[in-house]
Amino acid sequence: MAEKKLVEAITSMDEDFAQWYTDVVKKAELIEYTSVKGCMAIKPYGYAIWELIQKQLDERFKETGVENVYMPMFIPESLLQKEKDHVEGFAPEVAWVTHGGLAPLQERLCVRPTSETLFCDFYKNDIHSYRDLPKVYNQWCSVVRWEKETRPFLRSREFLWQEGHTAHATMEEAEERTIQMLNLYADFCEEVLAMPVIRGKKTDKEKFAGAEATYTIEALMHDGKALQSGTSHNFGDGFAKAFGIQFTDKDNKLKYVYQTSWGMTTRLIGAIIMVHGDNSGLVLPPRVAPVQIMIIPIQQKKEGVLEMAYALRDRLSGFRVKVDDTDKSPGWKFSEQEMRGIPIRVEIGPKDIEAGRCVICRRDTREKIEVRLEELEEKADEILEQMQKDMLERARAHRDAHTSVATNMAELEDILNNRPGFVKAMWCGDQACEDQIKEKFAATSRCMPFKQEHLSDTCVCCGKPAKKMVYWGRAY
Amino acid sequence: MAEKKLVEAITSMDEDFAQWYTDVVKKAELIEYTSVKGCMAIKPYGYAIWELIQKQLDERFKETGVENVYMPMFIPESLLQKEKDHVEGFAPEVAWVTHGGLAPLQERLCVRPTSETLFCDFYKNDIHSYRDLPKVYNQWCSVVRWEKETRPFLRSREFLWQEGHTAHATMEEAEERTIQMLNLYADFCEEVLAMPVIRGKKTDKEKFAGAEATYTIEALMHDGKALQSGTSHNFGDGFAKAFGIQFTDKDNKLKYVYQTSWGMTTRLIGAIIMVHGDNSGLVLPPRVAPVQIMIIPIQQKKEGVLEMAYALRDRLSGFRVKVDDTDKSPGWKFSEQEMRGIPIRVEIGPKDIEAGRCVICRRDTREKIEVRLEELEEKADEILEQMQKDMLERARAHRDAHTSVATNMAELEDILNNRPGFVKAMWCGDQACEDQIKEKFAATSRCMPFKQEHLSDTCVCCGKPAKKMVYWGRAY
Repeated sequence: MAEKKLVEAITSMDEDFAQWYTDVVKKAELIEYTSVKGCMAIKPYGYAIWELIQKQLDERFKETGVENVYMPMFIPESLLQKEKDHVEGFAPEVAWVTHGGLAPLQERLCVRPTSETLFCDFYKNDIHSYRDLPKVYNQWCSVVRWEKETRPFLRSREFLWQEGHTAHATMEEAEERTIQMLNLYADFCEEVLAMPVIRGKKTDKEKFAGAEATYTIEALMHDGKALQSGTSHNFGDGFAKAFGIQFTDKDNKLKYVYQTSWGMTTRLIGAIIMVHGDNSGLVLPPRVAPVQIMIIPIQQKKEGVLEMAYALRDRLSGFRVKVDDTDKSPGWKFSEQEMRGIPIRVEIGPKDIEAGRCVICRRDTREKIEVRLEELEEKADEILEQMQKDMLERARAHRDAHTSVATNMAELEDILNNRPGFVKAMWCGDQACEDQIKEKFAATSRCMPFKQEHLSDTCVCCGKPAKKMVYWGRAY
Repeated sequence: MAEKKLVEAITSMDEDFAQWYTDVVKKAELIEYTSVKGCMAIKPYGYAIWELIQKQLDERFKETGVENVYMPMFIPESLLQKEKDHVEGFAPEVAWVTHGGLAPLQERLCVRPTSETLFCDFYKNDIHSYRDLPKVYNQWCSVVRWEKETRPFLRSREFLWQEGHTAHATMEEAEERTIQMLNLYADFCEEVLAMPVIRGKKTDKEKFAGAEATYTIEALMHDGKALQSGTSHNFGDGFAKAFGIQFTDKDNKLKYVYQTSWGMTTRLIGAIIMVHGDNSGLVLPPRVAPVQIMIIPIQQKKEGVLEMAYALRDRLSGFRVKVDDTDKSPGWKFSEQEMRGIPIRVEIGPKDIEAGRCVICRRDTREKIEVRLEELEEKADEILEQMQKDMLERARAHRDAHTSVATNMAELEDILNNRPGFVKAMWCGDQACEDQIKEKFAATSRCMPFKQEHLSDTCVCCGKPAKKMVYWGRAY
């Protein structure tokens, strides 16, 4: 009964995926809407996931020499305007501060939508010699983009992210860092979030405002839509020329630096939900689960049950573990643990204690495993490791099963309408074909993957000779 | 020569303390000015100190049951206005967003100067029953206050901080949390930052806009000025009534919640500089030093020297340790290590290697200690522990030596002009006396300390019967 009540509150994902998503976000207590239109409050459980993402990503950054800094949240209008493509891309969607205290400002300031211009302004004064290079800086902060339509985690007017901004002596070195960070992102998604991604390059149409090249990782959600999950940009010396960032090289010549930037956001939490979730709620990969093990006592009023639950918790202290000792029914507790996607639940009651065992239930497969109490730590560790691996493989299998090949427009249309997912197809390289596919099918080029395949000789759209294999899809 | 060059660039603290401070901030590479007036860029070394503060403070928070969340950075004007005293206190110094994208907003938004109103708006919908209480939330973020005069770390238009916001079923519980967090702050300052603080209550004149009671920790800087280093506020049910935050209690009656808030900021880095620094630069307490040990090879081109330096670094991997293997002279490296306040430097050269020893030099005392290589880890640990303790005791001795007693206005004036520091004096409790002291001597009541003393029977200002002993001082 209790279980039913909580689960009834969620729409089935097959019935209405968007509503299912919103239900999970709310019922798992990740986010709450606020009085500030388009801005969300991230609740403790949602924020705890973000902290685990932050910590593990930051460690990986630092291993590659990244240093964290903090730049102002405001950008003077004149600074934003220095790089032509960049301002065109961002000006339409920034929030403007026009008054400070009781007085109007002499120059209005935008709230950073991204901080290339601030880092350039900083590097201009901070870089003098080749000895000052490379600069490999990153910041964790929030940014603002005045979106018209918003969705929790996926698109909101303010979101949390990290943005790396680097400066290098040569184009080669900048390109190397751009690719290095993209691969770091991809490995992180696969190893920590159990989320397989396609690594590739954006077409010119889809690249970042001001970038020479944008690389992306693209993940496939359960409903067959793509989600851009991280990007890494090579700016060449475009920003350096616009801002005058020069250094004296070893040969004593004055040269412009080459720059990159790269970012991942709280949107990753949306990706976790849509890749792993099911009709009982969230399913969290163990490495980003704020609680990895929930111990649920059965008949907890019977003597010794709660004591044993606490004893098991103490023995499992190497994990993120809790005991649900509230006065709710076990069924209710089960469905809460499932809704919140806690990877393992340990059931322990009088009979179990007598038999010297407990039951471990895996959230992803719902498999119930009898475990002897003396083996608990070892088994829990094994099961969490296995679950982390299985979740990645399951997501990969789903992605692969929802990746099709199209060689002409009829096929492309048929697949997009009847078999949601990635579509691999050849492309001539002309933006006109991209535009046409977008207009006709509301699908975009997700990326030109690093792993190219030869599917046919001609462009899926115009039939002219093909240059690149592209992943296409409808996207969040 | 090299050493001289770097040190020459710093003004002596006795000559011009303000200039000395600015020099240290710049030369130790903590901060850089930006094109955004009143906003600073926190550089890697400065930000690394903040990360160490954050990590250790956050751990202490979580031990007391604090959960982290994230609220929007914008506050709609109507929301800010709900609590009368609060809006009066903050409206004159907020930044206003009036345009989103290309269109004017229907209601302008301020960039949060503090988030009481946002948390209240959230709690209003999130709290229903006594079962939902207490709520003990915190967020790490940046806030904006449109200050006219700014100084690195101490006062800037944007700064980083944490703000805790809690809701409780009773006034007693709220008061308990207010005091608990103040004591947590004080212990943190003493144990981690080696900075002694006075714990006390603010007078009504100095309390937070909208608070029923504000508690504070006050530290004394090297120049005898006070620095408010953390505050904790009890709001009673004032905000709850303004926002309508009610819950059904165990007795089935609808009641208002009682709330608190508490915060510490990047200003703590300014405090570290001004409490511990000297004429050679920064002196960092080991617990917040991004690099605790700098190994400086002597005659590093001689065979085996660099190898030994790296071997020592590997042996010291339990500490935050680096080798300075740049091609600068040892003297230059010494002065850089001193400027950056790195607690210990290890000097190792060919003669040391032959003799099986190295030299440890303590940053605070400049004491040189010969250490046998096989004892290095043990000695380094001992010296860092000792240094952490000594720095606290030295700061405490300085604070105590710069704390005086005044029983009348003539004494108060004499002390404030000739012996900068805290002045303890009795007070009648009337704001008129506070106003007069502020007007005449530019000194403010810092706090009514928890540890009250009876210094005299009458108010230092008006001569009427005294009610409280107050710490007075000129403050940052």
